[in-house]
Amino acid sequence: MTASVTAPGEARTPRTGDPGTGGFRLDTSSLHASVTDPALTSMTLLNDIAGRYPEAVSFAAGRPYEGFFDTGSLPRQLRAFEEHLEGAGLGPDGIRRVFFQYGRTKGVIHDLIARHLALDEALTVDPESVVVTTGAQEAMVLVLRALRRDAQDLVLTAAPAYVGFLGATRLVDMPVRSVREGPGGIDLDDLADQIRSARREGLRPRACYVVPDFANPSGASMSLADRQRLVDLAEREDILLLEDNPYSFFHAGVPRMPTLKALDRARRVVYFGSFAKTAYAGARIGYVVADQPVAGDPGAVLFADQLARLKSMLTLNTSTVAQAAIGGFLVENGCSMERASRRVAAVYQRNLRAVLDGLEERFGSGSGFRPAGAVSWNSPSGGMFVVVTLPFVADDAALECSAAEFGVLWTPMHHFYGGTAGFRQIRLSYSVLTPEQIGEGLDRLASFTAAGARLDR
Amino acid sequence: MTASVTAPGEARTPRTGDPGTGGFRLDTSSLHASVTDPALTSMTLLNDIAGRYPEAVSFAAGRPYEGFFDTGSLPRQLRAFEEHLEGAGLGPDGIRRVFFQYGRTKGVIHDLIARHLALDEALTVDPESVVVTTGAQEAMVLVLRALRRDAQDLVLTAAPAYVGFLGATRLVDMPVRSVREGPGGIDLDDLADQIRSARREGLRPRACYVVPDFANPSGASMSLADRQRLVDLAEREDILLLEDNPYSFFHAGVPRMPTLKALDRARRVVYFGSFAKTAYAGARIGYVVADQPVAGDPGAVLFADQLARLKSMLTLNTSTVAQAAIGGFLVENGCSMERASRRVAAVYQRNLRAVLDGLEERFGSGSGFRPAGAVSWNSPSGGMFVVVTLPFVADDAALECSAAEFGVLWTPMHHFYGGTAGFRQIRLSYSVLTPEQIGEGLDRLASFTAAGARLDR
Repeated sequence: MTASVTAPGEARTPRTGDPGTGGFRLDTSSLHASVTDPALTSMTLLNDIAGRYPEAVSFAAGRPYEGFFDTGSLPRQLRAFEEHLEGAGLGPDGIRRVFFQYGRTKGVIHDLIARHLALDEALTVDPESVVVTTGAQEAMVLVLRALRRDAQDLVLTAAPAYVGFLGATRLVDMPVRSVREGPGGIDLDDLADQIRSARREGLRPRACYVVPDFANPSGASMSLADRQRLVDLAEREDILLLEDNPYSFFHAGVPRMPTLKALDRARRVVYFGSFAKTAYAGARIGYVVADQPVAGDPGAVLFADQLARLKSMLTLNTSTVAQAAIGGFLVENGCSMERASRRVAAVYQRNLRAVLDGLEERFGSGSGFRPAGAVSWNSPSGGMFVVVTLPFVADDAALECSAAEFGVLWTPMHHFYGGTAGFRQIRLSYSVLTPEQIGEGLDRLASFTAAGARLDR
Repeated sequence: MTASVTAPGEARTPRTGDPGTGGFRLDTSSLHASVTDPALTSMTLLNDIAGRYPEAVSFAAGRPYEGFFDTGSLPRQLRAFEEHLEGAGLGPDGIRRVFFQYGRTKGVIHDLIARHLALDEALTVDPESVVVTTGAQEAMVLVLRALRRDAQDLVLTAAPAYVGFLGATRLVDMPVRSVREGPGGIDLDDLADQIRSARREGLRPRACYVVPDFANPSGASMSLADRQRLVDLAEREDILLLEDNPYSFFHAGVPRMPTLKALDRARRVVYFGSFAKTAYAGARIGYVVADQPVAGDPGAVLFADQLARLKSMLTLNTSTVAQAAIGGFLVENGCSMERASRRVAAVYQRNLRAVLDGLEERFGSGSGFRPAGAVSWNSPSGGMFVVVTLPFVADDAALECSAAEFGVLWTPMHHFYGGTAGFRQIRLSYSVLTPEQIGEGLDRLASFTAAGARLDR
């Protein structure tokens, strides 16, 4: 066992080793295009840079806070789930079967998830419409796989977009069109334009991916009016909405906005949920609510039934051990993720204030930073991310310089635009830092920015 | 919580509920073909039949034995893995990160798996060539996704074939050609013929899927000479071998045959491993060894590196909680799955003898069964399956009759031939039964067979 186990991602340069001299080599040009697609390789490259500067203050990693992790919680949560099953009338054999045997394809904590959605999101969903997945990532792949029938299909997404969604589209050859995003989230006029122009080209826009609360990477949130307009637009334009909701509990204490799914009267919203940020990421437990009725399939009532079929050939079922752990987490918290997230939400709010105050101190109008006004940023009220616009190109080369010479890491935003925009923007993630580290990191960022602005690349 | 949690698969008829009258319905004809492919739907239909006859003796389920499952083992195994990490020098923060944070894409028990392969299979593999996956199923999808570049690519498999492999090909639109199988496994001449004829058609045969030990469903095993010939053939014909090895530990105590991977000097074998049958299926922990060097990809040394990229957009990483549990299982067993499997292998051997002796008693030459010789079966020396050939069509309708009127379930073999053959064959799985249940089930099977032979469909 080596330190490689502790690596947060693929942070190492690939081993050179001895993969054989001469002889058989797999020709990359003979493989599917996704293997070398930038949507899949860029995060590895960024992790590689991060891995080479372990002493740098990192605003790069979008990882959840680690301070409340406790290995002692696992046996307790497993036991809590076992008691939950006992309480539901399962005997010892049945319980052992749930824990260890091949399981129900749609999962075994679907009822607890439905209870959570009722409690926290005022969403009444049929537990049969829930498919528990190996993180929300698998759920995205399932939905995209189903929706990509042939070369005419495409999906839309607000840009900048979560790289994981872009990567999932590559695995199933689903083309993506970018929709403009403003401070209030996706631009609805642009969305309607894009749908219509795709149709004029003979294409089938199937769905639009959107993160209405504290989006990754932009931090943007949608107003209630825009949420309602988006749901209406989906019905009018005959598309699905793929709503992803990993961050909404990390708010400033104000009443949360309803999800798109809660506004969805026409079953136009497929809803992705995740426990990666509210419980822990390592379990890889997410889910999809797919309550769309289906026509033309005698063996399926809901879209969820069809997604389960695909899942049965992708991962068979989501790890029951991991489901039991997250099931116990849900039970321990009375199925309220709002309640379960309060501690960590407070950490993120504290850090968000440290970032926004720190940016104001160092780059604000009273800060004396020159060129004045050259550095700007948005001010999300929650989530895990802030976007800063710099007066120079902030690409991977700039990141390498920032890491090597100034000891501070961040994420170049162009990766979230598929390399087509965002070249002067960076994403700051503050979830795993202390306020002290944030202060130190912003000092370093200010030095880097001053140097970069002088070079004015 | 209802009894639905205990269902071993999708054994229920879909709920009719109220999916909305009128309004939006998802048109199945607008979805990817895999959604309704028989390779994905057939097992659901079979489970549905099984679910309607809970009192029947079931030779249908390919599930592992449940008698050694123990929820108390989980905290112990999690702790064993924690101690293993401590022993490797990880501090408390590092350990918590391994358990709960987003993890290394290729997994965190790769070194333990490499040790297991060295110990049990005399296989020396670079831990960097191991990708831990959400069961071997995900590994198959990853490899097939990579190998399916365009419409020219295809794979081969011995027929009958594991339905999960066929299903995985559907998810990535990979065509499959069937190769004949005899009592000694895949027909090597037919394999060479199929490869050449595909090439003559301008197609690219990429790989052949094989289970050399106690294949599912046939129970067939390959001789050492044929293994060597197959590995040589792969090199000569320039294809990969996709070796799947879930059953080899369930042998009769004789020295096991080497895996194809152990004979592979030219790195032509991609090896799938699984802990579903040796530890427990619910964890969903499998892996792939992909030590092929790659050309034309500066960011990757091994095929495993490229598979990890795909995995990073499919499930991000395999559940660390589940990996920790299986990691602890490995540690507790000194990384020997041979040793860990001894108890359950003895159960399967006992049951196999009960099935073979029971078939001989009821259908053998001295049994008085008429028409004499009309029922035959193979005699695997291990694994979980026996194939019986009946003197009449044994399809899904016959199964329904067998269940309803005779109280015995089995699996129609035609599902493993993609519906092109095997209509008079059935697969008997004996892994979850007692010898008494086997005897009772074979009595019922004899009654069903006598009735079927009289009808002589």
